[in-house]
Amino acid sequence: MPLGQRAGDKSESRYCGVEVLDFPAGEELPAVLSHSLSSSFDFLLAPLVDPDYRPTPGSVLPVAASDLVLGPAQWSSHIVGKISEWIDLDAEDEQLRLDSEITLKQEIAWASHLSLQACVLPPPKRSSCANYARVVNHILQGLTNLQLWLRIPLEKSEPMDEDHDGAKDNSDMEHTAIYEFTRAVAFLTNARGYPCLSKRHQKLLTGFFNHSVQVIISGRSNHNVSQGGVLSGDENHTEDTAVRHALSPYLDYIAYIYQRMDPLPEQERFEINYRDFLQSPLQPLMDNLEAQTYETFEKDTVKYTQYQRAIAKALVDRVSDDDVSTTKTVLMVVGAGRGPLVRASLQAAEETGRKLKVYAVEKNPNAVITLHSLIKLEGWESLVTIISSDMRCWEAPEKADILVSELLGSFGDNELSPECLDGAQRFLKPDGISIPSSYTSFIEPITASKLHNDIKAHKDIAHFETAYVVKLHRIARLAPTQSVFTFDHPNPSPNASNQRYTKLKFEIPQETGSCLVHGFAGYFDAVLYKDVHLGIEPNTATPNMFSWFPIFFPLRKPIYVPSKTPIEVHFWRCCGATKVWYEWAVTAPSPSPIHNSNGRSYWVGL
Amino acid sequence: MPLGQRAGDKSESRYCGVEVLDFPAGEELPAVLSHSLSSSFDFLLAPLVDPDYRPTPGSVLPVAASDLVLGPAQWSSHIVGKISEWIDLDAEDEQLRLDSEITLKQEIAWASHLSLQACVLPPPKRSSCANYARVVNHILQGLTNLQLWLRIPLEKSEPMDEDHDGAKDNSDMEHTAIYEFTRAVAFLTNARGYPCLSKRHQKLLTGFFNHSVQVIISGRSNHNVSQGGVLSGDENHTEDTAVRHALSPYLDYIAYIYQRMDPLPEQERFEINYRDFLQSPLQPLMDNLEAQTYETFEKDTVKYTQYQRAIAKALVDRVSDDDVSTTKTVLMVVGAGRGPLVRASLQAAEETGRKLKVYAVEKNPNAVITLHSLIKLEGWESLVTIISSDMRCWEAPEKADILVSELLGSFGDNELSPECLDGAQRFLKPDGISIPSSYTSFIEPITASKLHNDIKAHKDIAHFETAYVVKLHRIARLAPTQSVFTFDHPNPSPNASNQRYTKLKFEIPQETGSCLVHGFAGYFDAVLYKDVHLGIEPNTATPNMFSWFPIFFPLRKPIYVPSKTPIEVHFWRCCGATKVWYEWAVTAPSPSPIHNSNGRSYWVGL
Repeated sequence: MPLGQRAGDKSESRYCGVEVLDFPAGEELPAVLSHSLSSSFDFLLAPLVDPDYRPTPGSVLPVAASDLVLGPAQWSSHIVGKISEWIDLDAEDEQLRLDSEITLKQEIAWASHLSLQACVLPPPKRSSCANYARVVNHILQGLTNLQLWLRIPLEKSEPMDEDHDGAKDNSDMEHTAIYEFTRAVAFLTNARGYPCLSKRHQKLLTGFFNHSVQVIISGRSNHNVSQGGVLSGDENHTEDTAVRHALSPYLDYIAYIYQRMDPLPEQERFEINYRDFLQSPLQPLMDNLEAQTYETFEKDTVKYTQYQRAIAKALVDRVSDDDVSTTKTVLMVVGAGRGPLVRASLQAAEETGRKLKVYAVEKNPNAVITLHSLIKLEGWESLVTIISSDMRCWEAPEKADILVSELLGSFGDNELSPECLDGAQRFLKPDGISIPSSYTSFIEPITASKLHNDIKAHKDIAHFETAYVVKLHRIARLAPTQSVFTFDHPNPSPNASNQRYTKLKFEIPQETGSCLVHGFAGYFDAVLYKDVHLGIEPNTATPNMFSWFPIFFPLRKPIYVPSKTPIEVHFWRCCGATKVWYEWAVTAPSPSPIHNSNGRSYWVGL
Repeated sequence: MPLGQRAGDKSESRYCGVEVLDFPAGEELPAVLSHSLSSSFDFLLAPLVDPDYRPTPGSVLPVAASDLVLGPAQWSSHIVGKISEWIDLDAEDEQLRLDSEITLKQEIAWASHLSLQACVLPPPKRSSCANYARVVNHILQGLTNLQLWLRIPLEKSEPMDEDHDGAKDNSDMEHTAIYEFTRAVAFLTNARGYPCLSKRHQKLLTGFFNHSVQVIISGRSNHNVSQGGVLSGDENHTEDTAVRHALSPYLDYIAYIYQRMDPLPEQERFEINYRDFLQSPLQPLMDNLEAQTYETFEKDTVKYTQYQRAIAKALVDRVSDDDVSTTKTVLMVVGAGRGPLVRASLQAAEETGRKLKVYAVEKNPNAVITLHSLIKLEGWESLVTIISSDMRCWEAPEKADILVSELLGSFGDNELSPECLDGAQRFLKPDGISIPSSYTSFIEPITASKLHNDIKAHKDIAHFETAYVVKLHRIARLAPTQSVFTFDHPNPSPNASNQRYTKLKFEIPQETGSCLVHGFAGYFDAVLYKDVHLGIEPNTATPNMFSWFPIFFPLRKPIYVPSKTPIEVHFWRCCGATKVWYEWAVTAPSPSPIHNSNGRSYWVGL
């Protein structure tokens, strides 16, 4: 039975398991399972094989129960396998080492036969665990559905790579294992009277719940709590007069922590399905957006409020209160879409009492049809002129005081705002204003093994040389962001190239220890006008705006970064006759290939 | 509102649309939609653009309504676009031809902008329609979600390729278009008083319902039916006193036909999710089956009943009634799995009063664990000896009277039953019986564009050189099956190779006309013992057996077969030291490459 109903949460965090400490010999597993399920646990972490077993030729594996004693559906829904604790894959004793490998493989084969969802491996018994890594890699190659869960101690220990010189290779392997296969953390309670957790542990647990980590309650009860239910409103249990599970008070407390969490905010509920889901960035110059896409973006009221504020400020700066009745400002919306910036402009004019003449320039003929429909529905025929054209080739009948655009991608310039606005600058008055007036991209190195594996599944280089729009969730941010490229509008030297090159050096905080870098998360911040800005750079992000997810630049091979070692990365923005693209490379602590050389894998069409 | 609730039917056949005949000018589309939905239609087939429109530079497309007049959700859920009927892509008149292409592309672009699910294209206006095919191909390359539906006349006309010599290329293209893009058929009513359909049309419609075809009611009402509901129990409409839709009586009749259909049988409901879903065949020699797979197969009671009948007959033939008390028959189940054939054997012995000694030989150590559990649960310790070994290397302590196995794949020998049983034959007495005693594979040529496209999506040759297990549904069977390979057991010449080669010639019935062959469907039939058989060959298939779907051997390129032209196909079964594989090729009417040469793409490991 789930821990509770939390609006918007569909993750596995809702389920809680309990560990079976002793081997359930004599086919008592069905009774143990039944008791635990009726005590509201969702699954068992149970030993599969008698711990006294050691491999002997011709012997039958002494299992806790066969697939006839518990049916396949019960095994796969309610049992997580606990691999024998005595297994020591890096033992000095050869017989023990060989027995360990054979038994582990037999237990995993049996777990696969039963279609278990997961098995928990015992942790490596010593700091050198090369053979552990090798055997786990063997096993992983043969698995399709079974997950391996590793136990990771929560105490901080000395970084592995400082134990010995030359231990780098081993610890690299272990890091791979830890980052890639960890799904569960066993949790131990501690308290007086009723069990509870310290504030810090509560916070840790809440953080885990947000990352789909499942709780397993383990150990023997330290609390002598009366048999009454702690959970109020637990109506499913009124008929149950059987003996309560000894660990039920702990489950009640975990459920209480879970239920106490705030419901997921609307925006996160919307974004939950996009978590760690790689999307190709839009190609708005080459492709036409659909009505649904416009509709989604238009719902981002925060964004258009910022635009309206910026336009209002620009109008007031442009036309003094004395000139309000005599001066009409010419404002051009370039890339008008279905008209949200036209609306923001007219509202800013009304708010400031300035007279406005609006040109709405849009290259998508389907959006132009909708624009005509909008103008008619709103009665804006005398205020707005619709131009069905690409801004880069339109011959304007007059020059604009203000040029308004929303051509920004997750990385700022990556949807070719610089090229489009350079093209539109022709019809901006020499002292005219561009909104936005500048934008800057930012990056930070991240650990993101889930994204790395998703890209790797394509089995080609091209996907590792592509930048993706992605709602980052299962990642670790390794160092503060740094700025990459900045563009100003109107462009003070419009004939200069929009090519750019930046070299950045990231220092990983010492307490992080060593880490694996899978790529770089990218963001932008834009100055719309003077102090009105808009952006997704984490430290300055505009709150409650959902139009942009971060961008992710992957690395073909994860780079191992030892403790206290800086990362040096290079980013290029390159421009050709028909396309613009990025190239990127790491040069320290170890060199990567140049990614996306000549835009061979990923580019944005002009 | 769906036509009705039919148990197990989740297909789009449940929904019925209505065609809007006149262009809904002046924004009356929302009212038309609302009236149709309240009359229980599910969607409209509506013109998107004024039929008087012809492309003129700078003009805005005169659409029926914009995405502001009807929201994106309404467009995508309730409107199928009707492309302008005047469009004639193969007109002699160049201006008309060019206008047609521009308008068609504009309408499709608009439909994509609205995220419509489908558009209905007007049929080609003449028998030569190369430009139609070219333009539709252009459009298809740019579409992701929008479907194109073509109108196809239901009357039979002369085969295209007989109209003219040299017309072959065009008709080939047209066939591609017809087979690949057809989803809907417009339906016209005909009757007196209340509308109804002839028996033959009812049958046609029912057949369509089983293939997820959606009905669209079109035309003007010919029936002056009073406003009362024809459908009984239609409680959703009691409050609705508005004017009834003129075509409602036709909808009522379609709903009646739909609701009258039998519910989907249990087996089909189970199989519905597997329809046209390509699966790689099992590799039971190389891989170990999981408990769930055994459990599924063991539920096929029909299969085990047939085995039990065969074993009982063999026991009676082997031991006369006089010898019952003195003779014990040695029966070996080779590939015992979790024991279903052991159970069938013991039941046959009990049924016939014969004494039995059973050896259960199984190579999967996990299944052996379960076998031990079974023997214990059933109390069969004195009757059954479990052997944890591959039958090909087991040294039997005595020889068997009867060898029972179920090693058959969808194509009979494709899971290497011949090789396994040749290996097990060592411990069968010279006059011993093998159950099965023989099996034969069969093929037939089929049209299967859905399967072809699914394979093509992998963008490699290997997937076209692989045989798939698949529940065939959206296919056309083109000629009666013919037998391919036969194997007998015990093998009269056990040292002879299990290699085989067969050349087959299929005659397509004349009324089929020309067709496209995407590959060959494969089946098997097995003689278990004397008159007890088991199989999936369509003409002799064992009823209500679900252990096997057909196998599908694809062709890299579909082969166009003109009317009255036979197909010549070659199948090889090849054996190497570590693997067995098939190769196949077509040599008439036109040659294909040899598929899977040297087993490079698809093989079964020994």
